[in-house]
Parts: sequence; C-alpha cells; structure tokens
Amino acid sequence: MRIGDLSKLTGIPVPTIKYYQREGLLPYGERAGYNQVHYAEEHLRRLRLVRALVDLGRLPIATAKQVLEAVDEPEKDLFKSLGQVHYAITERPGDAEPATEPVHELLGRLGWQVSEENPSLTALAGLLGTLTELGHTELLTRLDDYAALAGQLAALDVGFLEQRGSQDEVLESAVVITLLGDVLVSLLRRMAQEDRSTRFRES
Amino acid sequence: MRIGDLSKLTGIPVPTIKYYQREGLLPYGERAGYNQVHYAEEHLRRLRLVRALVDLGRLPIATAKQVLEAVDEPEKDLFKSLGQVHYAITERPGDAEPATEPVHELLGRLGWQVSEENPSLTALAGLLGTLTELGHTELLTRLDDYAALAGQLAALDVGFLEQRGSQDEVLESAVVITLLGDVLVSLLRRMAQEDRSTRFRES
Repeated sequence: MRIGDLSKLTGIPVPTIKYYQREGLLPYGERAGYNQVHYAEEHLRRLRLVRALVDLGRLPIATAKQVLEAVDEPEKDLFKSLGQVHYAITERPGDAEPATEPVHELLGRLGWQVSEENPSLTALAGLLGTLTELGHTELLTRLDDYAALAGQLAALDVGFLEQRGSQDEVLESAVVITLLGDVLVSLLRRMAQEDRSTRFRES
Repeated sequence: MRIGDLSKLTGIPVPTIKYYQREGLLPYGERAGYNQVHYAEEHLRRLRLVRALVDLGRLPIATAKQVLEAVDEPEKDLFKSLGQVHYAITERPGDAEPATEPVHELLGRLGWQVSEENPSLTALAGLLGTLTELGHTELLTRLDDYAALAGQLAALDVGFLEQRGSQDEVLESAVVITLLGDVLVSLLRRMAQEDRSTRFRES
C-alpha cells in the first residue's frame, strides 16, 4: 500500500506519519520505482502501536522511540524485558533525591522483591513526598490497601506475559499491557468512582 | 514571601512560575510598593498543586487550567465535583465515534450505574477498539477481573471524599485522588510486576 492508504486506514494525517518516520518511530517504506513507495502490513501494525503509545499512553515522542527500540531488540527473559519497558516509560523525579525509606518499609510489609534499579521505587518515593507536601495524605493512610490491589492487577498482567510464545511477542505485550493497562485501569476506576459516588448520594 | 522564595521552596525556576501565572494557573502576588510583590502560603500550596498536576499527572497546561478552575468554583455535590474533574482530565478519542456496545455490556454485567456523559465510557470504548486492532486482546479476556479490582480501588477513593468536610476540600481531593491516584496505582503495579515476574523466573 501507499502512504495515503496508511493514512486512510489509521486516520493519521500523512504529515504526521512522515514526522514519525523522521523521528525514527516508523521505518520507511520500500522504494518501488520513481515516486512510488510501498508499505506492508507490518508498517500498519507499527503505526497503530505508535499511535497507541503516543495518544493513549501519552508518551513523549523520545520516550516512545526508546520503548520501540527495546521492542525491536528484546532481552532474553521476561524479567529483563519488563525492566527495559519500565525503565523507558517511568518518569523519574527531577534533581531532588526523594527519601525512599517509606517505600522500602512498604515493600518489607508486602514482602515484595523489587530491585533498587526499578525506577518506580524512586518515583513512588517522590509521589509520597508530594502528597505529604500538598497536605493530601488520604492516599497514604490506605497505601497498603492500594498496594494489595495493585499486586492483584500485576498478577493478571504477568499471567498474560507467561503465556506469550516468542521473545518479540513478550516484549510488545509488556509494553501494551503496562502502558495501555494503566489507561484501562484508570478509565475503569473513574467509571467505578461515578457508580460509587452515585450510590453514596442516594443512600 | 517574594517570588524568589517560592522558587527556592519548590525548586521551580522563577521563569516557570511566571509562565504559570501568565497561563492563569497561579494567581499573581499582592503588590506592596515599587518592585515588591508579596506571596502568601496559599500561593505556595497552589504552586505545588500545579506542579503535581503537570509533572506527575502529566496534564497539558490547558487541561491543568480547566481542572484548577473547577477547583476554584466547585459544584455543590460530590457526584458533580467528580464529574467536573473527570470531564477535564479524560482524553476523549479523536474524530471517530468508537462502538460503545462492549462497554455497555461490561457495565451491565458489573451492575455499575454510569451516565452516558462520563468521558471514560467513550474513552474505554476507543481503547478496547485499539487493543483489538493491535492484536493485543489479552487484556480484553480478563476485562471483568480488571474491572472488579478497579471497583475496589474506587471504593477506597470515594471513601476519602466522603470524609472531607468543605466543598473546596472535596474537589481538590477529587483532583489529587483521581489524578495522583492513577500515578500511585501504576507505580505500585509496576513494582508488583517485577516481584511477580521474578517469582515466575525462579519457580
């Protein structure tokens, strides 16, 4: 197919597709004679993945590029693949080194094995600090309850990854499940918030 | 305090603070004589909230502005307040009108009361469509399980809002709990994914 067909099938304007190519998110098509460039089914799939990461996952372009590079050259095992994805997509706090004791205490209570390199560890420490500064400590009072539910979500997530066959598939799944899974959980949670708050109003 | 003090206390550069003011996210200080502008404790609090929405919640500036306008002029009840927040922060799908039947079927199975105006309903319909297009239907096979856990998260969330006293407090809490709660759950889930995948590797 031509670039115009890619655009029609995805609803993404041609200039945006060309921008993704210049930024290295999408490979160029195969040149087939003067002014003719052909695109295959795999370009269409990749373009849809790019759009999902950027639009739904709200990843900055540079981050999406890192994630896709990891997808294209996957690590040998599930654990390392997940680590690559997490490392690329998790926003690390700025200059300040947040105090990680509260997070280590939480992990101790939960009995979770999490390496010091996991960027979510420092990011969570930063978030807990921000919530305290803002005077919104509600979430902190039930941190263990949130963590227990997050643990059940992760058990579902990892279950899918164990089922995937090849390494390529595992890494792309890790990206989709982690990033779009975040979006899925947050949308379901918002609908459930409406349901619960309506019940509260009526009770 | 002066603008330089705000900057020191938050680590946010003065030009960024001025940018937030021009964009209407942060009120100007009180002019106290030639070349002297005073800022109060509430400016500091607001600035921290802005940073939390923009940096941690990854809200675009225009969206953060809408959210803060809602915080400043809150609705009379919890249900409407939550609706305002959700409406501002939920990314709606582009031109295409996604098929909402799968979402309505899910809500029917769960027995959740969710209005047609809830932007998460259409956003979820779009996400389910994207996952199908990408060939990543794993998450869809366990949609009801994810929803059940999201429902338990929402019950925790709404519990906090019921406890807050004034309307102002309720709405600011709704913003913090919804938006930073998303970040909290996703970071906890990523750490739990590492824990679960390590156990899988060792088993």
